[in-house]
Amino acid sequence: MKTKQQLDADMRRLAQMIEGFNVAMLTTVSEDGSLHSRPMATQYANFDGALWFFTHAHTHKAEDIARYARVNISYVDPDKEEYISISGTAELVRDREKIKAIWNPVYKTWFPQGLADPDLALLKINLEQAEYWDSQASTMAQIVGPVK
Amino acid sequence: MKTKQQLDADMRRLAQMIEGFNVAMLTTVSEDGSLHSRPMATQYANFDGALWFFTHAHTHKAEDIARYARVNISYVDPDKEEYISISGTAELVRDREKIKAIWNPVYKTWFPQGLADPDLALLKINLEQAEYWDSQASTMAQIVGPVK
Repeated sequence: MKTKQQLDADMRRLAQMIEGFNVAMLTTVSEDGSLHSRPMATQYANFDGALWFFTHAHTHKAEDIARYARVNISYVDPDKEEYISISGTAELVRDREKIKAIWNPVYKTWFPQGLADPDLALLKINLEQAEYWDSQASTMAQIVGPVK
Repeated sequence: MKTKQQLDADMRRLAQMIEGFNVAMLTTVSEDGSLHSRPMATQYANFDGALWFFTHAHTHKAEDIARYARVNISYVDPDKEEYISISGTAELVRDREKIKAIWNPVYKTWFPQGLADPDLALLKINLEQAEYWDSQASTMAQIVGPVK
């Protein structure tokens, strides 16, 4: 068992690593049971135990999570040899106040209509477990249980 | 529907992209239904419609695929803005002739005992569907059906 201090240090390092990434891969389970990934623009906000991504409300991935909410988020940087795997549950959030609070013009690349887009929504990923491989520091940490 | 020519061109581009990567993320479904990813050293061989990775035979991921064979392989290069998602089924291969045929000393980083390791095995991923996002060329291709 890890001490609380070790877990806190692992969590700080995880948050620091995530904040260095612009794009995550989101893996969902499709209707036929196959697993699909796609790149997602990651939020430019502090990591607070949940991950938020902009999406359109009517997409395959939203259908996937409505049927099966368990997902994986991975972050990969082959040059730095940094790899992160986050297991969690996803939910679609259409609350306009939350959307406005997170919106940043940088997302216009993917959502050109911005806040005027009635289909604009958020995917909230509630973290259940996280693992990271930090090759430069030669460490691998497994963080089990709800990540706060 | 795509023409056979378009599909062949997409497949050649996919093979070319995969050959530029050293590391893939393998996502499996765990016993409790959660999704987990981990980095895998990718083979230094031509892509022929199946992907091969070295593994130890006794690992969580081997247990995962014995229970649920559907997996996702993703390749990510954030600098080049290249993203690949491959949906397929995984099988553990312990055939020593095949292991010897694919073995390359570069894998000693991950498998220091090399061919002398009795637990050394291969994961074969049979491709069912592939998608890639090739941002430099501003293309996204979806390749449906068994990828040969």
